[in-house]
Amino acid sequence: MPTLAAVLDLIRARGSVSRVELAEATGLTAATMTHAVRKLIGLRLVHEVGTVPSQGTPRRLLGIRTDSCYMVGIQFDAYTGTGVVVDVAGTVLAQRELPAPGMRSPADAIADIAETVRLLLQDAAVPRERVLGIGLATYGPQDREAGILLTPQPTPEWQGHPLARTLSEATGLPVSIENDATAAGIGIQTLSDSASSFAVVYMSGGIGAGIILDGHPYRGVTSNGLELGHISVNALGAPCDCGNRGCLDRVAGPTAIVEQALADPELADRIERAADPLTAFLSIGRAALHGDRAATELIATSTQRLAVATVTLVNLFDIGRVILAGRAFTDIGPVYRDALQTVLDEAIFMRHVHTVQVELAPDVTQAAAVGAATVILRNLLESPDTT
Amino acid sequence: MPTLAAVLDLIRARGSVSRVELAEATGLTAATMTHAVRKLIGLRLVHEVGTVPSQGTPRRLLGIRTDSCYMVGIQFDAYTGTGVVVDVAGTVLAQRELPAPGMRSPADAIADIAETVRLLLQDAAVPRERVLGIGLATYGPQDREAGILLTPQPTPEWQGHPLARTLSEATGLPVSIENDATAAGIGIQTLSDSASSFAVVYMSGGIGAGIILDGHPYRGVTSNGLELGHISVNALGAPCDCGNRGCLDRVAGPTAIVEQALADPELADRIERAADPLTAFLSIGRAALHGDRAATELIATSTQRLAVATVTLVNLFDIGRVILAGRAFTDIGPVYRDALQTVLDEAIFMRHVHTVQVELAPDVTQAAAVGAATVILRNLLESPDTT
Repeated sequence: MPTLAAVLDLIRARGSVSRVELAEATGLTAATMTHAVRKLIGLRLVHEVGTVPSQGTPRRLLGIRTDSCYMVGIQFDAYTGTGVVVDVAGTVLAQRELPAPGMRSPADAIADIAETVRLLLQDAAVPRERVLGIGLATYGPQDREAGILLTPQPTPEWQGHPLARTLSEATGLPVSIENDATAAGIGIQTLSDSASSFAVVYMSGGIGAGIILDGHPYRGVTSNGLELGHISVNALGAPCDCGNRGCLDRVAGPTAIVEQALADPELADRIERAADPLTAFLSIGRAALHGDRAATELIATSTQRLAVATVTLVNLFDIGRVILAGRAFTDIGPVYRDALQTVLDEAIFMRHVHTVQVELAPDVTQAAAVGAATVILRNLLESPDTT
Repeated sequence: MPTLAAVLDLIRARGSVSRVELAEATGLTAATMTHAVRKLIGLRLVHEVGTVPSQGTPRRLLGIRTDSCYMVGIQFDAYTGTGVVVDVAGTVLAQRELPAPGMRSPADAIADIAETVRLLLQDAAVPRERVLGIGLATYGPQDREAGILLTPQPTPEWQGHPLARTLSEATGLPVSIENDATAAGIGIQTLSDSASSFAVVYMSGGIGAGIILDGHPYRGVTSNGLELGHISVNALGAPCDCGNRGCLDRVAGPTAIVEQALADPELADRIERAADPLTAFLSIGRAALHGDRAATELIATSTQRLAVATVTLVNLFDIGRVILAGRAFTDIGPVYRDALQTVLDEAIFMRHVHTVQVELAPDVTQAAAVGAATVILRNLLESPDTT
């Protein structure tokens, strides 16, 4: 992770800390640390909060200026959306559900997002001039730099629509887009101080993944990797719109599980038919938790197939922690966590070298939105004007 | 890539180049470049080879000192082995086949490797005091730092045997170990000046992969990732010794294809039965190239399954080039290349964002050994004593 972001994260994690302790903890030289801290003070992100006695002159302690600036984070896909306002310390000051785009036009959906941003900033009661911008976490493929989606999902109108520019014009704030699963990974770093290398298995409208290694998201050449939902778990499986066959999302994702549930007349009666697939999936999950046999079997199918793909993820990326995030893990998350843990313990290639711990994100619903907000701050810290 | 290695690679690629051109090509500051060049000259890896007229003082040109030092690279698995001596410019000065370990003890196999090293250095006729060390590329899981294998393959004696230390004692040279597919990636960088981001699909005794991103190998947390041969291509497939089910290596690798060939009485007559599985596989490949129908079908099965796994690799790592390396691609390589290209063009998730080019390594047999040799030089350039 670039120096400024790493130093800011460390100050955040420690609460208050001296320059000497920062240099020791990061392995950076005293000169580099002095330079980084000066930049962070100049950006009004950090200030001196006191002193501690030391040999010679007392050491000055640094802390986060929580009132210095704020970021908005929005996560959405066709079936769900969440928005947050976050301060520099990573504290969520306001949170709202977003009307899911469904099959509506991008213009209508973005108008909803702009209205949610307005309400969020009102809820958070933060000075507008201190709002750095909006991070928008959503599915791919994307052109992150251009701020557009490169997919005709959920409708052809979305392909190439200038998502970031339209939302920026509607709100008067800078907008950056980010892959939702990667955003969830960045959000987990913000929400938990100990996470530096881990995989995210993200399940919301679809299935995706992210990798954070030594604090950096793995991005590949165009930030369109980690498409876990579109790896094949059955080479002879059904063709998928993506071009591949037997895709994980088509056999284990919320939409697939709901389709299977609706084909079972008894189970179909007990799920929220009228709802979008994600809401219906959550109701299947609750039925399973209450002991419904058919629902339990469907969830078991989903967990077993997700486990196969997660073994692939671990065998390729060699990572020691897998963290589950995304709204689909609400309520039913612990069942997925335990099932994945059992399979990973038995099946990963490097299990005699190291184990892999499966966990639930501190907040499965908010992680991606918090990460999208954090991206705005990281962009500032990584911009050539700053460093 | 750390600065020194990147600068050395650039000087190698350009032949002769001035400090100003190096700074322009790398984006490094003139001060950083001056420092890096001073280090490389101090290590006797680079020297001044002439001047070109320029405004004011003439610009001094830098070139590689090809006689400054040499590295040995060895690749082996149970069925095959290759050794090379390489100079700083990446030129292969000597090459030898190695007796494959087969089911022999590590002590016997290492004695063979030591003897091959002796013969290679004799062939290359380089001063022994200028030999930096031996890079050993082989399968995993490994403990790279300890220089040991963490697998009971090919026999239980190999698990935990101090491979690097034993070879170092037998040869009097420092030894580092490396994953063979990752080594092939590093070797491809050495053998071709244009490769900075690509995936390697490696097939020798088994199937593996490597990722080079902006010149760096992707390593994960313990350098035991990219186990492409042990990702499932069929969740309901046969159990594998690795703990997983339906592993790619068990349905597409040389051993699996040879097993299938031997089960076909007609085809079994035409392959080299008595040989090790890799030699037998190569004979199936040649039979397919000569139009044998049964052999062609077996190779097609292997290519289709390898293609499914390669789509997974690309969909997860988002990479723009896939390069095939490893002895199994001798002769039959172009068939695999073309089959993978066809499937990737149709099935990868980001194909509307960018295409993925499938290529054969400049030398499928030597790439891993050359990479293992290059690792020794990179270790020197990255050691804290140097930088």
